[in-house]
Amino acid sequence: MTDGISADLLQDILDEVREDSSGELVPHLADYVHPNPDALALAVCDLDGHVVSAGDDQIRFDLQSASKPFVYALALDQKGVDEVAKRIGVEPSGDPFNEISLEAGTGRAPNALVNAGALAAHALVGDQSDDEDSRFEQIRALFARLVGREVEVDQEVIDIEARNAHRNQALAHLLAEEGNLADDPHRVVAGYGRQCAIRVDTRELARMAATLAAGGRLPGGDDRLLGRKAVRYATSVMFTCGMYDAAGDWVYQVGLPAKSGVSGCLFAVVPGRFGVAAYSPRLDDHGNSVRAAAAIEALSDRLDLHVLDTASHHGFGPAT
Amino acid sequence: MTDGISADLLQDILDEVREDSSGELVPHLADYVHPNPDALALAVCDLDGHVVSAGDDQIRFDLQSASKPFVYALALDQKGVDEVAKRIGVEPSGDPFNEISLEAGTGRAPNALVNAGALAAHALVGDQSDDEDSRFEQIRALFARLVGREVEVDQEVIDIEARNAHRNQALAHLLAEEGNLADDPHRVVAGYGRQCAIRVDTRELARMAATLAAGGRLPGGDDRLLGRKAVRYATSVMFTCGMYDAAGDWVYQVGLPAKSGVSGCLFAVVPGRFGVAAYSPRLDDHGNSVRAAAAIEALSDRLDLHVLDTASHHGFGPAT
Amino acid sequence: MTDGISADLLQDILDEVREDSSGELVPHLADYVHPNPDALALAVCDLDGHVVSAGDDQIRFDLQSASKPFVYALALDQKGVDEVAKRIGVEPSGDPFNEISLEAGTGRAPNALVNAGALAAHALVGDQSDDEDSRFEQIRALFARLVGREVEVDQEVIDIEARNAHRNQALAHLLAEEGNLADDPHRVVAGYGRQCAIRVDTRELARMAATLAAGGRLPGGDDRLLGRKAVRYATSVMFTCGMYDAAGDWVYQVGLPAKSGVSGCLFAVVPGRFGVAAYSPRLDDHGNSVRAAAAIEALSDRLDLHVLDTASHHGFGPAT
Amino acid sequence: MTDGISADLLQDILDEVREDSSGELVPHLADYVHPNPDALALAVCDLDGHVVSAGDDQIRFDLQSASKPFVYALALDQKGVDEVAKRIGVEPSGDPFNEISLEAGTGRAPNALVNAGALAAHALVGDQSDDEDSRFEQIRALFARLVGREVEVDQEVIDIEARNAHRNQALAHLLAEEGNLADDPHRVVAGYGRQCAIRVDTRELARMAATLAAGGRLPGGDDRLLGRKAVRYATSVMFTCGMYDAAGDWVYQVGLPAKSGVSGCLFAVVPGRFGVAAYSPRLDDHGNSVRAAAAIEALSDRLDLHVLDTASHHGFGPAT
Repeated sequence: MTDGISADLLQDILDEVREDSSGELVPHLADYVHPNPDALALAVCDLDGHVVSAGDDQIRFDLQSASKPFVYALALDQKGVDEVAKRIGVEPSGDPFNEISLEAGTGRAPNALVNAGALAAHALVGDQSDDEDSRFEQIRALFARLVGREVEVDQEVIDIEARNAHRNQALAHLLAEEGNLADDPHRVVAGYGRQCAIRVDTRELARMAATLAAGGRLPGGDDRLLGRKAVRYATSVMFTCGMYDAAGDWVYQVGLPAKSGVSGCLFAVVPGRFGVAAYSPRLDDHGNSVRAAAAIEALSDRLDLHVLDTASHHGFGPAT
Repeated sequence: MTDGISADLLQDILDEVREDSSGELVPHLADYVHPNPDALALAVCDLDGHVVSAGDDQIRFDLQSASKPFVYALALDQKGVDEVAKRIGVEPSGDPFNEISLEAGTGRAPNALVNAGALAAHALVGDQSDDEDSRFEQIRALFARLVGREVEVDQEVIDIEARNAHRNQALAHLLAEEGNLADDPHRVVAGYGRQCAIRVDTRELARMAATLAAGGRLPGGDDRLLGRKAVRYATSVMFTCGMYDAAGDWVYQVGLPAKSGVSGCLFAVVPGRFGVAAYSPRLDDHGNSVRAAAAIEALSDRLDLHVLDTASHHGFGPAT
Repeated sequence: MTDGISADLLQDILDEVREDSSGELVPHLADYVHPNPDALALAVCDLDGHVVSAGDDQIRFDLQSASKPFVYALALDQKGVDEVAKRIGVEPSGDPFNEISLEAGTGRAPNALVNAGALAAHALVGDQSDDEDSRFEQIRALFARLVGREVEVDQEVIDIEARNAHRNQALAHLLAEEGNLADDPHRVVAGYGRQCAIRVDTRELARMAATLAAGGRLPGGDDRLLGRKAVRYATSVMFTCGMYDAAGDWVYQVGLPAKSGVSGCLFAVVPGRFGVAAYSPRLDDHGNSVRAAAAIEALSDRLDLHVLDTASHHGFGPAT
Repeated sequence: MTDGISADLLQDILDEVREDSSGELVPHLADYVHPNPDALALAVCDLDGHVVSAGDDQIRFDLQSASKPFVYALALDQKGVDEVAKRIGVEPSGDPFNEISLEAGTGRAPNALVNAGALAAHALVGDQSDDEDSRFEQIRALFARLVGREVEVDQEVIDIEARNAHRNQALAHLLAEEGNLADDPHRVVAGYGRQCAIRVDTRELARMAATLAAGGRLPGGDDRLLGRKAVRYATSVMFTCGMYDAAGDWVYQVGLPAKSGVSGCLFAVVPGRFGVAAYSPRLDDHGNSVRAAAAIEALSDRLDLHVLDTASHHGFGPAT
């Protein structure tokens, strides 16, 4: 039992969303990685580090875009808000995740969760003495501390992604032309490919989310891994932009900062309370996991988690 | 003292922001309405209906776009989410408030806070037997209950706006062509002009905000004026789109649902706690009041009101 | 025989294109005007006023957008290039004919052949003492001289168009807001509806085209109806923008200034040589008549009429 | 004397445009190549190969974008219209030359004169057995035959361009992702950089233009260098897109297919009559040479060269 959430409740929600087999695996990965399309998991981790989970909670998956908010927060911590803001904007965007457009006038990536912004954030980690490897080691170290173990990367995924990286190469070159990429485009795209291929399971992703829910402290301790302001920025952009062009609906219906990855993972943050993660490989047209999104929406509905809903504050009773 | 907020604190904040005399009055109103450009007020109303305020808190101003979230919530209550969603989208938008663009594919207004959406929401109030007058009376009645007195409209403003309504006429005709306007464009634009010209003062606007903070109940009582789900929708769109194309920065820095009007008013909602309003006529380039925005940002900073910040939950202490 | 073109050649071309029954009548007109969908005509008029034709060459149709270049030329003659250029741009546009967008920065209509530009051109005819009727009489008089008889308007079409004019109303209001519409939006839209409803047959439309081919002189005489510079502007915009978003293909394949109308008419100008017109009501996805376009393309192919092709100059022989 | 054009006329025009010293050298070249900003030349070459010229007619400059129409024509000749049309569209575009946008739906470059299209055209030259060098040798051979001597490339310019090629790299990767680039992005960008650095003088550029004016035959002989249809395509896209986003004005005022390069060169084609070239390094905001454009416009005005103007056909006398 975690913050009043039992494994039975999570299991109940999984049973509710299980029958929806709509959606498709992401094509360029499906043929190589062969994930089980029926896999389904849901987990919650509270601020004390207690995890409850249900389903296939130990299947590992690539973080893919779910890595973005953490690396953005790391860049914010290392470089400060002002420095990062020169390269990455903070505007909500209804655009697809791989839209080829930078902010008019500034040439910045619109925000940290579209690929342009994720590339710019990746490049901001470390300093000028860092090369692709030493920069990536800093990122890998962050994820290792977030999940509490060494993390491996999926080399097969890295290779596949490298063969499909034309769009990211294009974005990186555009950012470089605008002076908004802190390193060489090819090194940044290669390093970002490694970041996307870090593998965790659903329980670990919930724990990662809980660190954001705790304002940057590791759950179950006093260790601060990320600064509170950096976390506020990361969760703010997740709130408005985390679900790609489905962002609008999610804000209204679920009302939690969240981020999905094309491997089928999804996590959400309930600020000050807990982190939640779900996994199911089939994706909707927006690139979000169909059943992972449904599971987290069901959890938000049942527990009145919408951050703007009065029931999630000060113990209001339910109303129409 | 309201939810720990004293008049001294508000006065202190006003003193802090007062010296910023940047910004301009909105041109087409300045020559006729002659507001005092130096006017400045700030007010908070808690869920019990207690109001604290400072500055020129009894100067009345036109609601202008600050009326939009309330009429949207009224339309949601009357017609239901699904019916309203056919005409008004829920996507965050970085576009200017008067952008001439409907949602590709659906022809819907992008959201309820750009003018297209506000016209569509206005037209959804009432039913087919309603004409411009009887529809407006329902809207006026809503605002009268929100402020607790009869509300008047500023006929001079209505006349000025009518002479400057080409853009709204264009939007209304576009919506009509798409089948997304529930009444004749000219009647809708005229009625919307009256809605914008309703006059309140800063204390009253804080009280209106408190109704949203209470999930639709009138502060200080059990009367429900708006449904909780309608209010959740209204505050969600305020969170992502309420500050026009400054929406991104506001989400990160202030983190409260808010809505401004070109008369210089601005209100924000602290869900489950209180409503806040500010007034100062000079506007920034986005059409938001310079000092009203600064005052509410200062209040959010001092009291850690950002809805995604852990300090606004569970009493976390301050961190970096 | 006109400039080496015989009725047999035209008949031959019609037989070639006749079997293509693809395309659709324009919906909002088809139910009221009931044109014969199989009607097909082709006509050529040389600079001496000799007309050869084939097919249903005496069926009359509404000019619709085919009226636009003539009214633009009239406005240019009356107001001069500089005055017109303040309200109507000269940029090629790949946009659909009814695109809701004005030129960034200037608020001008992009060019005279999209609806925004046609409304702006209509409004520029006459002077401040003119009302809707007297302005329209000047336009009607132009077309009367072009065809050599009094021209009537199709009142049924005017009424239908008025009920479907939301998009034009939107455009007119936008232009008015930018200060780029010389009269009241409603009067301009109404007058433009009358302009579109002027009726001619295919032989008459060829004669109208021949006036442009002659640089503004009436075929078969020395009377100058339009200035040569105005005609050069009108044919230039026809060359780049006359076939809506099919403009690009047309320029490459046919290479003649042309303008279509949704009634199924189409005319082209062979500068210094002759005018050509065709009629067939079924339209392609771009709003151009399928068979009228095919007929004029066939004529251009057979006679090497492409203005940039060397064979249309100095008598080059055929090459690869 | 060439087609009635004397060196005195050209000198007269140069004297007319010489005093306009507005515009700027292209920044990333100016610091390295050090062209004389005051250089000014004008030349005409008729279909017999006779050249008249005035000014600094033997200063060599990089072709830059002036190379695009020729390589496009070469690709059309080698691969045929249909094959090329799969990768490169034919739509007029008001976009800047380096706009990052491919055609919606097809992912094609919008046309052959924006950089995306020029890269796609470059990549289409040769076949699968060709590498960067052998492809470039085919292109170099084309230009050698066009000017009648071996042509050299400016290695310094190639190096400078390579350091500034982020935007072209981005375009090439985008095309590759859409399957619309026939070779590896890096090889294509490198090869295109060499193509841009080919150097000719103004007399030679006029001769190159004359080959297009002759429908692909070399001036002064019967040798066909490019197919007539390929030339018609190349001049058509020059007519509508050759002068970047100044295309509209040029079409109206000058009415000749033309293409500029950022080195300050500009050439135009008078179909069936002659080619014209001008050179002056200072560029306007659109990236076109200020004085070269003025010189060719003056020539068009004086000789009534506008291809849609009746005076350029059948010997019409001047009119208003």
